[in-house]
Amino acid sequence: MSDSLKIAIIGGDGIGPEVVGAAMNVLEAAAPASGCKYESTEFPFSATHFLETGHVLEDVDIAELRKFDAIFLGAVGGLPNDPRLAGGVIEKGILLKLRFELDQYINLRPVTLYPGIETPLAGKTSKDIDFICVRENTEDLYCGVGGFVRKGTPQEVSNQTMVATRFGAERCIRYAFELAKTRQRKQLTLVHKTNVLTFAGDTWFRTFQDVASDYPEVTTDYHHVDACCMYMVAKPEVYDVIVVPNMFGDIITDLGAAIAGGMGIASSGNLNPDGTAPSMFEPVHGSAPDIAGQNLANPIATIDSLGLLLRETGRIKGDQAAVTCGERVGAAVKAVTPKFAGKSLDRSGYGTDKIGQMVID
Amino acid sequence: MSDSLKIAIIGGDGIGPEVVGAAMNVLEAAAPASGCKYESTEFPFSATHFLETGHVLEDVDIAELRKFDAIFLGAVGGLPNDPRLAGGVIEKGILLKLRFELDQYINLRPVTLYPGIETPLAGKTSKDIDFICVRENTEDLYCGVGGFVRKGTPQEVSNQTMVATRFGAERCIRYAFELAKTRQRKQLTLVHKTNVLTFAGDTWFRTFQDVASDYPEVTTDYHHVDACCMYMVAKPEVYDVIVVPNMFGDIITDLGAAIAGGMGIASSGNLNPDGTAPSMFEPVHGSAPDIAGQNLANPIATIDSLGLLLRETGRIKGDQAAVTCGERVGAAVKAVTPKFAGKSLDRSGYGTDKIGQMVID
Ligand SMILES: CC(C)[C@H](C(=O)O)[C@@H](O)C(=O)O
Ligand SMILES: CC(C)[C@H](C(=O)O)[C@@H](O)C(=O)O
Repeated sequence: MSDSLKIAIIGGDGIGPEVVGAAMNVLEAAAPASGCKYESTEFPFSATHFLETGHVLEDVDIAELRKFDAIFLGAVGGLPNDPRLAGGVIEKGILLKLRFELDQYINLRPVTLYPGIETPLAGKTSKDIDFICVRENTEDLYCGVGGFVRKGTPQEVSNQTMVATRFGAERCIRYAFELAKTRQRKQLTLVHKTNVLTFAGDTWFRTFQDVASDYPEVTTDYHHVDACCMYMVAKPEVYDVIVVPNMFGDIITDLGAAIAGGMGIASSGNLNPDGTAPSMFEPVHGSAPDIAGQNLANPIATIDSLGLLLRETGRIKGDQAAVTCGERVGAAVKAVTPKFAGKSLDRSGYGTDKIGQMVID
Repeated sequence: MSDSLKIAIIGGDGIGPEVVGAAMNVLEAAAPASGCKYESTEFPFSATHFLETGHVLEDVDIAELRKFDAIFLGAVGGLPNDPRLAGGVIEKGILLKLRFELDQYINLRPVTLYPGIETPLAGKTSKDIDFICVRENTEDLYCGVGGFVRKGTPQEVSNQTMVATRFGAERCIRYAFELAKTRQRKQLTLVHKTNVLTFAGDTWFRTFQDVASDYPEVTTDYHHVDACCMYMVAKPEVYDVIVVPNMFGDIITDLGAAIAGGMGIASSGNLNPDGTAPSMFEPVHGSAPDIAGQNLANPIATIDSLGLLLRETGRIKGDQAAVTCGERVGAAVKAVTPKFAGKSLDRSGYGTDKIGQMVID
């Protein structure tokens, strides 16, 4: 394909614009050698924008974003206790809205301990922490289904419903099997809580068993989510690929980020694997308003998310130059992380721009 | 009070009966010195019993158990993949049924790194890992509310509903504030996911704020459940007391068990603090059928749960001798754990009976 890759950039709040800026410098430097062509357009959606204009993300904005091949997002979210942002108005209004509207049904989160990065787990090395989580991204407790009865009274009741569908579980599980098939260990673990969630868990468990029969080369396992958390800290080496519904996926992938060295390093992709709408890529960390604008933020997770953007979008669009460029960016990140050995990712002493430059070099 | 403490014993499956037996030996040895009087009766409820008789736990059994002051449970659960036990028939039929029917609305789970016990977290010591989780135990996704539409077809939908009530949240949160008030740091953290669970999370958040105004001496904080998992491995020292709804509580307390040395050490109490029905105490670990009957199981978590039983039931019933005896059992456990230094709790080389004897000595 000769078209250039159209990237919509949502820098967002706090450190978001800085880390995305550093990543885009990396792209500018890396693209020519791979023949990767791209163009980018910036969008203002953020807590700041909402507070200034009253607009979070309108339907016309979504329509506009649909014209792009990928969305690259820094971080959205204002000050933690700002009452004007209560109830998840930004998270739901931007992040979740994009995931749902653009049918980004896979949230891909690699849990890889890079060379030189310190894990909080004693005695574990890069060999032990190297798996990937496939989190369902468009169902579950994230649907917003629920309500109140007698709100504000002593008799208040609230319901919040986890919705699971065969369709949603199956496409996610199938994606996970396809991914597992390409990996060396070819091992896939379903994480749920079937002994308590006898409806939603049952839909997932039966679907998993059905799809498994199409992939005899993949070995499968099942862990309850509580046990999974124990394994992640005690024996992370048991995992190769994990497939997990949305809410439990949110929890275990943050734990995954923690064991792989923390938020400073965790990348993620919200994929629409069918290519019917753009996928979105973002570091797992938040907007960290306390260190914004001081050249203190570590852009590594964002640069790694850019690598993911190039590889995954390249694959979906059949743009081999983008894939190659993404592989180079990923390799450059791995070449730089050893420089953080013995240092904290958050307080490495290197500035945002310096780290970006290290990756470029 | 001159009545003796009436303890119902449910040894359960696998290693359950052994570890409970070891704990009861400790009680026999420890009781006289504190003037603690008790009597115990054994009950057969377990997966084994179900497979033999077809009975899990009937209403008449519950009525019988109500006559006791406390229930002491080893572990229930059969072989992981036994199709006759699918769908959580034992977990739901015994554990959850007792928690709900006996209104054991608090699940108390200490996360304490005992001297000599190894944590998987690098550089963390007993000073860093010393908090307690107050998990709500009678609501949430555990209510069993939900169902299927078009089960078994490509159009299958399943719903599973999280139910929260002001009443249920408030009594749990109040319990947690009362507990926090008695501790040195007097710090209480609510864990939920208010930015996504805008109904159930909102009920909990408002209730937490309302109750907080009655406890000006307690400092409060709020963490999203995903962030909580990161803190638990990266900075567990931020926690003193955590209050959390049922499902998230299940997850974070298993993670808590993992950072405090694993299942071999984690104790728990399912409390009915009002004393309207017996409370239930159990180690967090499962029935481990693979090592059952070989004198290999470590009874430390069960003995520690016995200490909790004596202290909490003693408090609820106003039986000071039981409280004193429970404190002695707790102290004896802490005196023994240093012997596990450099050893794995699971494969310490000490037999079940030997470890019990060490605590007695
Ligand atoms: C910000 C929040 C809505 C979001 C989520 O819960 O999915 C975040 O935690 C994440 O994991 O991307
Ligand atoms: C066995 C299961 C039903 C139970 C739960 O989920 O509560 C267990 O995990 C626990 O934490 O006691």
